[in-house]
Amino acid sequence: MQLESISHFPKSHMAYARDRETIHIRLRAKKGDVTHVDLVYGDKYDWNRSYKRVEMNQFASDQLYDYYQVEVKPPNLRLSYAFYLMSDFFSIYYTEKGLTHELAPHATGCFHYPFLNAADVNQPPQWVKDAVFYQIFPERFANGDPSLNPENVEHWDAKPKQDNFFGGDIQGVMNHIDYLHSLGITAIYFTPLFQATTNHKYDTIDYMQVDPQFGNNDTLKKLVRRCHERGIRVILDAVFNHSGYYFQPFQDVLTHQENSAYTDWFYLSEFPVKKDPSPNYGTFAFEYKMPKLNTEQPELKAYLLDVARYWIEEVGIDGWRLDVANEVDHQFWREFRATVKSIKPDAYILGEIWHNAHPWLQGDQFDAVMNYPVTDSILNFFCYRKTNASTFMQEINHIQAIYSEPVNEAAFNLLDSHDTARLLTTCQEDKRKMKAAATFQLTYQGTPCIFYGDEVGLTGGDDPDCRKTMIWDEEKQDQDLLSFYKKMIHLRNEHAALRDGSFRFLMTQSNDPVIAYERKNDSETFVVFINAGDVSSYVLTSLEPGKYDEVFSNESYDASGGSLHINVPAFSSLILQRIQESFRSP
Amino acid sequence: MQLESISHFPKSHMAYARDRETIHIRLRAKKGDVTHVDLVYGDKYDWNRSYKRVEMNQFASDQLYDYYQVEVKPPNLRLSYAFYLMSDFFSIYYTEKGLTHELAPHATGCFHYPFLNAADVNQPPQWVKDAVFYQIFPERFANGDPSLNPENVEHWDAKPKQDNFFGGDIQGVMNHIDYLHSLGITAIYFTPLFQATTNHKYDTIDYMQVDPQFGNNDTLKKLVRRCHERGIRVILDAVFNHSGYYFQPFQDVLTHQENSAYTDWFYLSEFPVKKDPSPNYGTFAFEYKMPKLNTEQPELKAYLLDVARYWIEEVGIDGWRLDVANEVDHQFWREFRATVKSIKPDAYILGEIWHNAHPWLQGDQFDAVMNYPVTDSILNFFCYRKTNASTFMQEINHIQAIYSEPVNEAAFNLLDSHDTARLLTTCQEDKRKMKAAATFQLTYQGTPCIFYGDEVGLTGGDDPDCRKTMIWDEEKQDQDLLSFYKKMIHLRNEHAALRDGSFRFLMTQSNDPVIAYERKNDSETFVVFINAGDVSSYVLTSLEPGKYDEVFSNESYDASGGSLHINVPAFSSLILQRIQESFRSP
Repeated sequence: MQLESISHFPKSHMAYARDRETIHIRLRAKKGDVTHVDLVYGDKYDWNRSYKRVEMNQFASDQLYDYYQVEVKPPNLRLSYAFYLMSDFFSIYYTEKGLTHELAPHATGCFHYPFLNAADVNQPPQWVKDAVFYQIFPERFANGDPSLNPENVEHWDAKPKQDNFFGGDIQGVMNHIDYLHSLGITAIYFTPLFQATTNHKYDTIDYMQVDPQFGNNDTLKKLVRRCHERGIRVILDAVFNHSGYYFQPFQDVLTHQENSAYTDWFYLSEFPVKKDPSPNYGTFAFEYKMPKLNTEQPELKAYLLDVARYWIEEVGIDGWRLDVANEVDHQFWREFRATVKSIKPDAYILGEIWHNAHPWLQGDQFDAVMNYPVTDSILNFFCYRKTNASTFMQEINHIQAIYSEPVNEAAFNLLDSHDTARLLTTCQEDKRKMKAAATFQLTYQGTPCIFYGDEVGLTGGDDPDCRKTMIWDEEKQDQDLLSFYKKMIHLRNEHAALRDGSFRFLMTQSNDPVIAYERKNDSETFVVFINAGDVSSYVLTSLEPGKYDEVFSNESYDASGGSLHINVPAFSSLILQRIQESFRSP
Repeated sequence: MQLESISHFPKSHMAYARDRETIHIRLRAKKGDVTHVDLVYGDKYDWNRSYKRVEMNQFASDQLYDYYQVEVKPPNLRLSYAFYLMSDFFSIYYTEKGLTHELAPHATGCFHYPFLNAADVNQPPQWVKDAVFYQIFPERFANGDPSLNPENVEHWDAKPKQDNFFGGDIQGVMNHIDYLHSLGITAIYFTPLFQATTNHKYDTIDYMQVDPQFGNNDTLKKLVRRCHERGIRVILDAVFNHSGYYFQPFQDVLTHQENSAYTDWFYLSEFPVKKDPSPNYGTFAFEYKMPKLNTEQPELKAYLLDVARYWIEEVGIDGWRLDVANEVDHQFWREFRATVKSIKPDAYILGEIWHNAHPWLQGDQFDAVMNYPVTDSILNFFCYRKTNASTFMQEINHIQAIYSEPVNEAAFNLLDSHDTARLLTTCQEDKRKMKAAATFQLTYQGTPCIFYGDEVGLTGGDDPDCRKTMIWDEEKQDQDLLSFYKKMIHLRNEHAALRDGSFRFLMTQSNDPVIAYERKNDSETFVVFINAGDVSSYVLTSLEPGKYDEVFSNESYDASGGSLHINVPAFSSLILQRIQESFRSP
């Protein structure tokens, strides 16, 4: 047994409260190294009488490790524990004090989850797990009120540039609520709507005003109400890491320099504050237009928390997406969470973090992050064909293992955004690849998000090309793609198991690159097969015994013996639903 | 290279802000497996031009692993990084995306410390690192006001029992401030002083009143003022995990049951609430006298935070020791910290946690915990002689590695307390062992704490025997021990390097069980040798070249060649101070 590889950290993604009465404990070991793992656990104040032993389940494997998990419900909410690992010719206990052949009495040296306090449980809103999001870049979605058009507005079909404008606005969104509703999405994420100079509006001038090019606060309030009437929630973009250059307090600094009342709202190192030849103040990246905000300054903090409060309380929004969330202090986000949740307990707090975000996802800061690691894995497998099925599964499993279950269930799974190339373009405009990727996204855990226009075949490379205007001419819309998206979204909306059911890859004997996985809750079981390759392939899979129907073709499959030999055509998917046996009277 | 053993977690004890401009990055690898580690680091927004490479230093080793560390000061406070590991015939990069032979451009896949926000830096108060604490169990220290004596008070020399009383009080402490000052201690930790029924007072009746057996709030205020006049700080015990049975709100619950206004202040599962045959409400351990408090209940929380505020603001105390801190919710402790630090920024927040306490020590909750893992290692090596020098060093190194430097520097290092047997008794009443253990404690990192009476030879096994009354009769005091403690405390007080200087074990070629280590700051270097065994031993040590004087004997040692061959007598220590070369004019 490779002892150095055995790893557990208490009160982490490896030991967390699943809910108010359940604790998940995980262990990591070298891949293929351990044959059996038990959790030995009990109440430390009554250890010798209370301790028990339960086998842990290997729930994931990646390139180097196997991951084990078990859930326990400690009756007095206190949990002390150790691991017992076995390989063919060796066994050992693993405790906080290290590896040992004998457990000390009275839980001495054990790991501890000292008390399961409800206040610390990370419980993202249920609606998020049930939602399908749609991301709207407002300047490009629909022009509903030409009277608000910026000067020099481009023709709707022109090419997007870093600095041109097309006149999209809130009324435009309002005009298309029926479209969104029929698509089946249940939540909208708007990139910034507040007053700013650029077309993307990430350089805020006034956090309390909708940009006049988009409408006003009342227009937004009306839109939110209309959305709510159709069962669609709305979240906005909170750009709190930095302001815009024309944010009044920063302008005050430029005017009054060291005499400004706002000098400590920013990261100033010398006077005069100036932007040329390069900014001598802290910025986002090195962008002079985006002076970094000092979010620990009490007045600024109070102002931003008031912003957070205002749009929820007065305008009715359902949450916030936090721009450059990883560069703002944790303390600010804790206070932000307390503010937001005190007004709307089920508001969604979604951070923009591209890397491992565990430090922000422990229940005190965010409900979720934009899950770019999953994005990367999906694109590399389905679109670029850089990875094989085995690597793809390892990568997805790795993400399952580095985040807690509540985090994976509420993760924001996107395949593209205003910051990346569009999915169809990433797929070399091969719709079959795009559908395969989207099928995974829409049948995987987490809340999926569709970038406006993907569903009608909008293409585009990196920014600004990915910010083309929405296609509204039905003849120009890809109706085949649109009906695919509608079909998949409605399937997800109809079946809770596809939303927050459990997820696991199924072992298959197949030609690469076919994957199979199960989504399951108490009442439904789905098995999804996706062939990411260009050759039809037979797959032999073990799965829950029973009879299955393919959800779209209604073809029947008999897996009563617990295995299935099935043909998955190139670039295709099969979504099997297990037929529930009807209730038999005794 | 054993790839599975290579380990790093971003934003953890392995990647933390040392101060407002410095980040420490650490890496763990299998012991003896890696010959060289570089950190590759830069600013992700300018990676290709900014990235650099710096060698990491192996700062600790334990039984299984080597630990590497380096510090960097990122000019724009943003840090992205990867590791480059070499062994004899192999090299590889380690990134957040795993192990790779080539780094991607633009910091893709790197680990990130996205921004060093000052608000998140864990900076325990400087005075704590400089302090020597003295723990007083007030009922047993000194009886200064017999008019407050409880009924049936025992003779001062009687044997302590679970439930007897001796009449110790605050006036008693006041009467002995000169003694404490001459001992050299600079801070007192009082076990509970608030009104309660037991002799230990952990069953609080009223958090706003000093127990009448001890005095009143004014007596305590006067004591704190007197202590401050002598440069002695005072911290109290906050018992917020549970109240006493006679806490008025719990009595209200017992009286009014489900109609009480306080039902949600406690963990009640059924009515009537009753203690027999066993309590049907949540308790500390299974002790009916200590009903667990529901610290997320808003009114209770407000009350307890008001308690925290009152004793600092009105009585002037310098911090809080938090009883059973690991069973209270993190959210409560974050609000507690915000409350306490807003009134007294340099107040000390010390949690009682016996196990790995990293989740509480990231800057948002505690400054320190009672460092029982160090206690265990010291006792096992010096007192029980269960471990050899190599194991002892590995254990201490392990603690150095699982905590950040700021945490190790402010840790509360005790060798005994009211919850354990007394040090002299643990040492089988062998004062030589006791002195060796105390020498380590008083020349190690962290803030040392002496349990009242240890310094005059008080003995005692486990509770209640460890709670004997203080010896005030000078003839009965062990004057040899007392002068040893005074000498050691004054040495520490005189030399900053022994307080918050760096710590490292020196490699020695010696007979077990002799250890050698260095404490060092910019102006002073000390090398300490301790022989924990009963045989005199010669030690050959590498150390900083120079001439050294032993601090107590003034004997001189010449280590100009960077090594020293030195005789360390049985159960003895030598504390060498490097002689600073005087300034040479050019």
